[in-house]
Amino acid sequence: MKKVLFATSALVLSAGFASAEVAVSGDGRMGVIYDGNDAQFSSRARVRFNLTGESDAGLSFGGEFRVDQENYSDYPDSLRSAARGTAGAVWISGTYGKLSMGDTVSASENAIGDLYEVGYTDGTFAGDVEEISYLTGDGENTDQGPNILYEYTFENFSFFASASDGSNTSGPAVTGVGFGIDDEGNQVDTASTAWNVAGKYEAENFWVALGYAEHDDASEITLGAEGNFNNFSVKGIYADYSDRGIVFDDVTGDTAVEFDKTYGLSAAYQMDAILLEGFWRRDETKGVADGFDDDSFDSFGIGAEYDLGGGAVLAGGIVDTDYLDDTVADLGVKFKF
Amino acid sequence: MKKVLFATSALVLSAGFASAEVAVSGDGRMGVIYDGNDAQFSSRARVRFNLTGESDAGLSFGGEFRVDQENYSDYPDSLRSAARGTAGAVWISGTYGKLSMGDTVSASENAIGDLYEVGYTDGTFAGDVEEISYLTGDGENTDQGPNILYEYTFENFSFFASASDGSNTSGPAVTGVGFGIDDEGNQVDTASTAWNVAGKYEAENFWVALGYAEHDDASEITLGAEGNFNNFSVKGIYADYSDRGIVFDDVTGDTAVEFDKTYGLSAAYQMDAILLEGFWRRDETKGVADGFDDDSFDSFGIGAEYDLGGGAVLAGGIVDTDYLDDTVADLGVKFKF
Amino acid sequence: MKKVLFATSALVLSAGFASAEVAVSGDGRMGVIYDGNDAQFSSRARVRFNLTGESDAGLSFGGEFRVDQENYSDYPDSLRSAARGTAGAVWISGTYGKLSMGDTVSASENAIGDLYEVGYTDGTFAGDVEEISYLTGDGENTDQGPNILYEYTFENFSFFASASDGSNTSGPAVTGVGFGIDDEGNQVDTASTAWNVAGKYEAENFWVALGYAEHDDASEITLGAEGNFNNFSVKGIYADYSDRGIVFDDVTGDTAVEFDKTYGLSAAYQMDAILLEGFWRRDETKGVADGFDDDSFDSFGIGAEYDLGGGAVLAGGIVDTDYLDDTVADLGVKFKF
Repeated sequence: MKKVLFATSALVLSAGFASAEVAVSGDGRMGVIYDGNDAQFSSRARVRFNLTGESDAGLSFGGEFRVDQENYSDYPDSLRSAARGTAGAVWISGTYGKLSMGDTVSASENAIGDLYEVGYTDGTFAGDVEEISYLTGDGENTDQGPNILYEYTFENFSFFASASDGSNTSGPAVTGVGFGIDDEGNQVDTASTAWNVAGKYEAENFWVALGYAEHDDASEITLGAEGNFNNFSVKGIYADYSDRGIVFDDVTGDTAVEFDKTYGLSAAYQMDAILLEGFWRRDETKGVADGFDDDSFDSFGIGAEYDLGGGAVLAGGIVDTDYLDDTVADLGVKFKF
Repeated sequence: MKKVLFATSALVLSAGFASAEVAVSGDGRMGVIYDGNDAQFSSRARVRFNLTGESDAGLSFGGEFRVDQENYSDYPDSLRSAARGTAGAVWISGTYGKLSMGDTVSASENAIGDLYEVGYTDGTFAGDVEEISYLTGDGENTDQGPNILYEYTFENFSFFASASDGSNTSGPAVTGVGFGIDDEGNQVDTASTAWNVAGKYEAENFWVALGYAEHDDASEITLGAEGNFNNFSVKGIYADYSDRGIVFDDVTGDTAVEFDKTYGLSAAYQMDAILLEGFWRRDETKGVADGFDDDSFDSFGIGAEYDLGGGAVLAGGIVDTDYLDDTVADLGVKFKF
Repeated sequence: MKKVLFATSALVLSAGFASAEVAVSGDGRMGVIYDGNDAQFSSRARVRFNLTGESDAGLSFGGEFRVDQENYSDYPDSLRSAARGTAGAVWISGTYGKLSMGDTVSASENAIGDLYEVGYTDGTFAGDVEEISYLTGDGENTDQGPNILYEYTFENFSFFASASDGSNTSGPAVTGVGFGIDDEGNQVDTASTAWNVAGKYEAENFWVALGYAEHDDASEITLGAEGNFNNFSVKGIYADYSDRGIVFDDVTGDTAVEFDKTYGLSAAYQMDAILLEGFWRRDETKGVADGFDDDSFDSFGIGAEYDLGGGAVLAGGIVDTDYLDDTVADLGVKFKF
């Protein structure tokens, strides 16, 4: 006794329904990942809920999360849950912009995003090295409960702001509110607010965006631009971090290595049903303690996709990155339902 | 490729569908909780499945659970799961009443319920102090697997009965059946049945209800009443517990403090789109061992809601309770989809 | 604001929708299990997603999983998840057969299946002793990530093949790809491929099937047949295992007991709305170390079902098995939505 969901919104609009709706969509993928030594099967199936409504005065509101984003567990309590504000998001939108709360992306990530992803696993087969390591948001500050993201667009200009609330939350998780525990086992209520502002200018064929973020002592400046010319598009991202420690001295706890810079470029070419994509990216780290040197890590990726229509895409990618010992590749199909 | 679910049942009824259906609805909320020291973001998005069917002879049946109620984990095995009978519920209903099984509320809670909840988090921001601490059901006896609830209404009178099965269940969790483990690590199959009966009389403007529950040595008598006059409604609840130990002597294991009584009153006033609500509640505990005194805990709450239409409500609440050091408050919007 | 899903596909087909769809269906059950000593309540409610699409060239694709199959947890990382390929499945199907990936059944299980299940819990009340213990697939090799299953039918003949990928996966679980950990704590990438081929011949009133599987040193030959005559159907299964160790010497690690053979027979009789079912099954084990003898385990089950219509079935079963000390039984209703 299967229930079939209607796939058109025309019918819905014409029949005068109440405005509040739950839309159900899905995605899937199946194929083979070459991990440098072996070929491994990799597949998944997911379902997403998209909640939308409108108030009497015309304010839009909604929320969204996937079934697999609802994975709460008492132990460890770090797992994310849409019902607890640390996965998915809810939002409200009107003349004055859109405000989202939950596991939102940061202002800079919303404005600039990542390099183009390759392969049927959208880069996951190589550890998602096309993704920029944004300092705040998108899973970075969930120990503070939900984050917020504000978006406002006026003609060609968009403004974005995001923040965490500066309070730890490992208490009554059902509200996303409570206390954290410090290194000595004491309850601590207060953390540093992670915040981020970004601006973007969009013209017909290109956009440029700039963002600034801070969390504790660390800060991030991100610059991004993308252009589309005929069937060709190119995107570049530059991120400069300050005081962003990633390796620490075991004894003193002092920072030993800082994440200093990321810059990368990606390009894509669309030819009928075929899409060719590639990216290059370099991460630079800085040794700030004795015996720790500066270092840099390069990652290259190329991929091709063939649109089979109806929501199915045949795709493959190859990535060579200093983060993995081997060149890795994937090949498979991805689906949208 | 989003699927939009239809929000009207008229269309469904007119088109002669099979009777078995899965309805998908959702809710969400976003806002700020003041925990006495800091303002913290708190948001959530949830989706609920409502399963309904009808047999050839006109017997109704169904079930319901939310995505976030399906959170099974091998470790700890205490997590609740609709697929294992310890969250959500299934039911069957006919001329002779309705029988539900799963994580059902108790007979008394079904008849009487709780005090009015305030705030956009429906009282959660203050630890849900408007909720009566019923002795059985609604998450209290899930170590015995599913509970049952029977409801029967004849004219103005309703009768309710609920029970656990008196057997522990930490065995093959997929059926909700198995063995529990006692303090010495032995498998024990038998627990005390937690049971509850309640009666309710409903007139046009008011109802009164009385319930009695037992679990092990503990028992509970609950009395509740609610009246509606013009735009004003008021509800009172009195609960008297016997032998309900809540603090125990570390050495002897004897009861040190018993939960003795709860009584409270709540009131609401509806004025067009505005709803004003408030409650007061007192819990009394009894010291039954040397060095443990009687005590009482007061909780007050007030709140206001403004219906924005379309399923959105702006709401805020303030609660002052002896269970928390500080006065706490919340303010935000809640949504129904 | 409930959303009602349409229960007919006629409307969907006539209105010319896009091909990609998400169908939502559900099931539930409630009743009482007699565990040999006590009667215990057992209930559940579940929701299933069925994803389907079609490419421009007529290739079908899809996926399916239940809400309760999405139960990922970092700890333990053994929990299964449709979003990580170790629960549910995705598939693609065309002229050349159907290829599934995920937590698929093995070729032999797909061809032959299990004995008839009895009771409203479909055999779960007795530990599912009607299920054949197939060597590969269906939850057996999830430590290697997703499995694959290939099915091809030509006239009355069907061919099935299934396999795991021969690589362990407790690494980056999001892709189902990574490294396992051996007994000494070292990362190991390579396991033994578990593979299985099977063939089946289907005539109007009966089918016969034969399968062969291998994993490490263990192998399995399975033979099954089923016939339907008027209202009567009968099914027999014979499985012969080689080198399938199930008990091991604590000191040397050598195999002490092997699972040697399973054979069983089940029969069913349908009379209007009533279905009568029964099965018998014997498992034989072989002692291969000093002090371990050969043994055999018999299991019997009988059951009856009464179809109430509309998706509801009243059912009960009794099972007597050497695996449990007591005769166990269940009685209840099961629902499809």
